[in-house]
Amino acid sequence: MNNASQGQHGLDNVRAIVWRDGGLKLLDQRLLPGAIEYLEISSAMAASQAITDMVVRGAPAIGIAAAYGTVLAARQAERNGTNWRDTVRAVLPGLARARPTAVNLRWAVERVEVHLNDSEASPDTLEDLAIRIHDEDIAACHRMGELGAQEIGEASGVMTHCNAGALATGGYGTALGVIRSAWAGGCVQNVFAGETRPWLQGARLTAWELLQDDIPVSLVAEGAAPWLMHHGKVDWVVVGADRVAANGDAANKIGTYGLALAARHHGVKFMVVAPTSTIDMSVATGADIPIEERGADELLSLKGTPVAADGAGAWNPVFDVTPASHIDVLVTEVGLVRSPTTESMKALMANAR
Amino acid sequence: MNNASQGQHGLDNVRAIVWRDGGLKLLDQRLLPGAIEYLEISSAMAASQAITDMVVRGAPAIGIAAAYGTVLAARQAERNGTNWRDTVRAVLPGLARARPTAVNLRWAVERVEVHLNDSEASPDTLEDLAIRIHDEDIAACHRMGELGAQEIGEASGVMTHCNAGALATGGYGTALGVIRSAWAGGCVQNVFAGETRPWLQGARLTAWELLQDDIPVSLVAEGAAPWLMHHGKVDWVVVGADRVAANGDAANKIGTYGLALAARHHGVKFMVVAPTSTIDMSVATGADIPIEERGADELLSLKGTPVAADGAGAWNPVFDVTPASHIDVLVTEVGLVRSPTTESMKALMANAR
Repeated sequence: MNNASQGQHGLDNVRAIVWRDGGLKLLDQRLLPGAIEYLEISSAMAASQAITDMVVRGAPAIGIAAAYGTVLAARQAERNGTNWRDTVRAVLPGLARARPTAVNLRWAVERVEVHLNDSEASPDTLEDLAIRIHDEDIAACHRMGELGAQEIGEASGVMTHCNAGALATGGYGTALGVIRSAWAGGCVQNVFAGETRPWLQGARLTAWELLQDDIPVSLVAEGAAPWLMHHGKVDWVVVGADRVAANGDAANKIGTYGLALAARHHGVKFMVVAPTSTIDMSVATGADIPIEERGADELLSLKGTPVAADGAGAWNPVFDVTPASHIDVLVTEVGLVRSPTTESMKALMANAR
Repeated sequence: MNNASQGQHGLDNVRAIVWRDGGLKLLDQRLLPGAIEYLEISSAMAASQAITDMVVRGAPAIGIAAAYGTVLAARQAERNGTNWRDTVRAVLPGLARARPTAVNLRWAVERVEVHLNDSEASPDTLEDLAIRIHDEDIAACHRMGELGAQEIGEASGVMTHCNAGALATGGYGTALGVIRSAWAGGCVQNVFAGETRPWLQGARLTAWELLQDDIPVSLVAEGAAPWLMHHGKVDWVVVGADRVAANGDAANKIGTYGLALAARHHGVKFMVVAPTSTIDMSVATGADIPIEERGADELLSLKGTPVAADGAGAWNPVFDVTPASHIDVLVTEVGLVRSPTTESMKALMANAR
């Protein structure tokens, strides 16, 4: 499968990251759904800034963007006649640090580092690596989609949170890949998406992305999700992850933890969908995952207009950690784990490449 | 106590409803905190519309506004030389129906109806009744503030949701009355407020109102509240109610139910603060409370600008019901009930006037 190929499944029409003729374009997700604009990214530093500024977001997507960023650095060195390995090594820390919670940045940087230590490597083979990372991610999403959809079987309603879709990955999506596959199989009646404050990824991105593939979706405020479950409208909560710890604890968009508590209370099943690139066996539990806090202004203003009274404070952590105890199934491209534990996670990762 | 008197407590500087020289002014809460504008309300129909349009909101406040609306109708009849009782009777159904969930509208209308059946009554005595309803509500809020603050004792953090403050009552507030009293006693270190999507009552109203009284407040997105509790930052959740059923189930702003589930999970205490005018012994349980749904546009757009992709749906119930099983204490002006049941609610209401 090639990352340029779209629509094979009939439900795969969105790409946030485009690599063509050695150039990187990122769909500017800050502008969606009002405008569909791709930003030309011409350097590793620009890629890093685009990740920090959330032009591109989503754990797998920012890993891919970072990988392409290193190719841009290598090509720049080629043009300047400087050592491409040194140039790439110099940009890796900045790319790895662009956002703290998703482990995929570090994972991508480490794959590039391994490549740099290969004496046969060249900027051409680094480009091949980045394209492979991208293509593998799309393939992983399709595989997770199949596995997750099988696990769901028939459902009257599924609910997702934030955007773990094509926009957050190489394409097809993690949680939304599962929802796409389940929808394509006629197994899901209703799709609900939390609007996802403060950045409104659910309203702005997930709704847009699903509608591109003609999948109807109903938004709910985060506060309404437990009430929706109380009414029996949700059989499965399906979310992505930014980092999964060795024991199965999963960091994901703020609000996920509360959904998991509500799901357990109502007997609603809870699924986390994440490629193995998102699993960090070096952190024992979720308590060791760094949680990014962003500026209070994301809560205090809307599109630059103040919402709250001048002088109000805000606490704006943008991820939380759902304990493994509240995860019914973790779906990866190498298989799924029900009720994850340190032991079953180790066994799963033994299958990862 | 008279409703014109403010600031007696040092922390009571906000009034949303002003009755002066026979005229009604309502602070337009749709414009807060950007603008402080009082709308002149000149008829019962205008009062009813202001309630529906959320110029004034909050269960006790809309009951008071409805009572003053009937006075406006009576005075209009006087001026027109028509029968004031007939005119008032004609406007009662519209006022009672202006919003469906809060029982305080019906409660106020019923008090006016009793008055109409008194042969000694006049428009002057109807005005006295409305002012008494207003003053009693403020006094009830101060009493509940004391009782609730005693119950809380010392707390490092309290969290509230929506706006159950001076803006939602005659003055001082229900949940925010408790928080004001606890703050005045030096018993609370940190106040957190959920921003309260989609109408942002927490960000727009609660933060503004608390800052008027120099009480610092930190906003959190609804999705962040369970994560805040996980970090041990909240000892008590303190909320208001729009209607409490005979068994103690409490309808309140959407999101309250999820807070109650999260609170119980984390061992955080959960307090509902509501005057007896909000208790409806005619509905056995929360399942019988009508839950208002408002337009999808409240989720799909922000200040008239579309947020979500064209074609997205939305489910927008604006209240939910917290079961009595998840309420640690219900505070009213005639006393408090811990872990409310049908029996203890009956005993409580025997003390109500």
